[in-house]
Amino acid sequence: MASSNTMAGGDGPNSYSQHSTYQRALLEVAKEKINEAISTELDINSASNRFNIADFGCSTGPNTFLAVQNIIDAVEEKYRKQPQQIPDDNTEFHVFFNDHSNNDFNTLFKTLPPIKKYSVAGVPGSFFGRVLPRDSLHVGHCSYSLHWLSQVPKGIADRSSPAWNKDIYCTGFSKEVAEAYLDQFKIDFGSFLEARGEEFVSGGLLFLLGSCLPDGVKMSETMKGMLFDCMGSCLHDVAKEGLIDQEELDKFNFPIYPAHVEEFKRVIEDNGCFTIKAFERISHENEEYPLDPKFLATSYKVTFGGVLESRFGKDAMEKTMQLIEEKCSEILPQLANAKSGMQYFIMLQKN
Amino acid sequence: MASSNTMAGGDGPNSYSQHSTYQRALLEVAKEKINEAISTELDINSASNRFNIADFGCSTGPNTFLAVQNIIDAVEEKYRKQPQQIPDDNTEFHVFFNDHSNNDFNTLFKTLPPIKKYSVAGVPGSFFGRVLPRDSLHVGHCSYSLHWLSQVPKGIADRSSPAWNKDIYCTGFSKEVAEAYLDQFKIDFGSFLEARGEEFVSGGLLFLLGSCLPDGVKMSETMKGMLFDCMGSCLHDVAKEGLIDQEELDKFNFPIYPAHVEEFKRVIEDNGCFTIKAFERISHENEEYPLDPKFLATSYKVTFGGVLESRFGKDAMEKTMQLIEEKCSEILPQLANAKSGMQYFIMLQKN
Repeated sequence: MASSNTMAGGDGPNSYSQHSTYQRALLEVAKEKINEAISTELDINSASNRFNIADFGCSTGPNTFLAVQNIIDAVEEKYRKQPQQIPDDNTEFHVFFNDHSNNDFNTLFKTLPPIKKYSVAGVPGSFFGRVLPRDSLHVGHCSYSLHWLSQVPKGIADRSSPAWNKDIYCTGFSKEVAEAYLDQFKIDFGSFLEARGEEFVSGGLLFLLGSCLPDGVKMSETMKGMLFDCMGSCLHDVAKEGLIDQEELDKFNFPIYPAHVEEFKRVIEDNGCFTIKAFERISHENEEYPLDPKFLATSYKVTFGGVLESRFGKDAMEKTMQLIEEKCSEILPQLANAKSGMQYFIMLQKN
Repeated sequence: MASSNTMAGGDGPNSYSQHSTYQRALLEVAKEKINEAISTELDINSASNRFNIADFGCSTGPNTFLAVQNIIDAVEEKYRKQPQQIPDDNTEFHVFFNDHSNNDFNTLFKTLPPIKKYSVAGVPGSFFGRVLPRDSLHVGHCSYSLHWLSQVPKGIADRSSPAWNKDIYCTGFSKEVAEAYLDQFKIDFGSFLEARGEEFVSGGLLFLLGSCLPDGVKMSETMKGMLFDCMGSCLHDVAKEGLIDQEELDKFNFPIYPAHVEEFKRVIEDNGCFTIKAFERISHENEEYPLDPKFLATSYKVTFGGVLESRFGKDAMEKTMQLIEEKCSEILPQLANAKSGMQYFIMLQKN
């Protein structure tokens, strides 16, 4: 099954755009790093007067607007300090907002900052393939998107496969399940880098931000993993009540893989289009979800509600979310003792 | 009042995308002209491997896909026949679909041709201003959009003004009304050309298609003018029934101006960014609307229903459309004897 996971559209109280403060906190911490990186590392030999920036997996805003503004501010600052490096006095910024073609671009476009110093373009299409012309991109950004795989790996949803993952995600993380997910991650992240490798100009910078696992830490040991397990358990409870067909549920998995640091590095090195200029753990005050069952349930609803609703219907989704809130209260002590995941800041430079 | 007129979204039976055969017929006739023009006139000195195409006022498709494909086919054909002119062996097409930011881009993106040899970008924003970077555009296209003004001209909707236009549009076309509309057209079309003048590379081609008036023909003498008068009259009837507030209606006008040929030419010459390479009347079999009251009413609903509904409510809009269908039957003899309007094909080359 090819998947195209998009966040809840619109800008209502349960929309992604109203519930993305977690990602925003990371962006704010990353701003300084991006600023410094652009100042010292960006090295573009361009005869053109255009400076192209893309955000891959932009969703509906507003975080994407903040991210691109940070980049533009940094580039302008660089050229103010190093005027000899300005490719052209009339440099104009062209910003490409990319996401799946079923992303809510209408909301993105309606909520654009009223005053902005760049031309806007929405780019529909999967970032696992080419979405921009060759040699056109100077700075790219991708935040909280690379844990989404292009599909649930083969075998994972098949009861007869050794890689069948009955328990949605973490608890049943057998060797076969782990390998199937890792293989899919290698294919997908490799495709992402291959496509970006063609789109970037030499010397361009690609910033990747998101959530991964420190080497040696299992997903099921982290708060997010426990919450995933909790969601799986709640889905099974809803199935027992009859609101979800058990066989359907047995075939259900999320196309998500939180890679380990070493796995990220290996794919980047195998791909060969980019050089790793930074791979850092960054911290911010919202790094771990707050231990508030209501907040946790709403966050999960915004992120996963759409997929659950389209698969199992609205009632089953609502019931699951209600159970998640209840169960979260029960497992608060475990959540409080979870191992830390890792927020990553990766800077790649196109060779 | 700033206006942003967008066609009915989605792809249901009353959507623009299902009711755009009239415009499509013009596109098909224009295809040959565009093909020949690109073969003989396009003269771009580009060091880049990108070929940028934009459709201004793209709406939700599918005509815009046909229009850009025609252009790409023509450019590829040109380079096949004249290989020495290929700017770069790896030329890639980048297509920019422009319309107001409240256009239904979601439908546009979901209905993109599954197989296409170009990168896609949606560009939200009024084409009366800059929407693309400077010196970036090679071929532009604008079909059935330039009769929309940026706003109803000042005075037109003001009962105390000599330019007040009580009768919506045509019948009450006093000298003052005509001047106010023409002045607004000059400002808007001038702004359009000014913005495109900055966006185009030298030698690039801009194709304008649409509906205008032959010099000497009044709007009220054409079928479209009579239908507009009919709509105005129906709106007044609905106001008499109490579904529309008469004072609101007295302030209501469409920001539409069907310019005369001479008026188009004058603005292009005054602007000075482009040279007129062709200004032709073109004919096609769907040039005049068919004399079918149901078809006419549906066409008007698709094009104007949204504006009427947002101004006067859904009931008033539906009632008006029902009356239009009835009145159309009554005025069929007049419609049959209307003077011809004109479908124009304009080719401009950036100086």
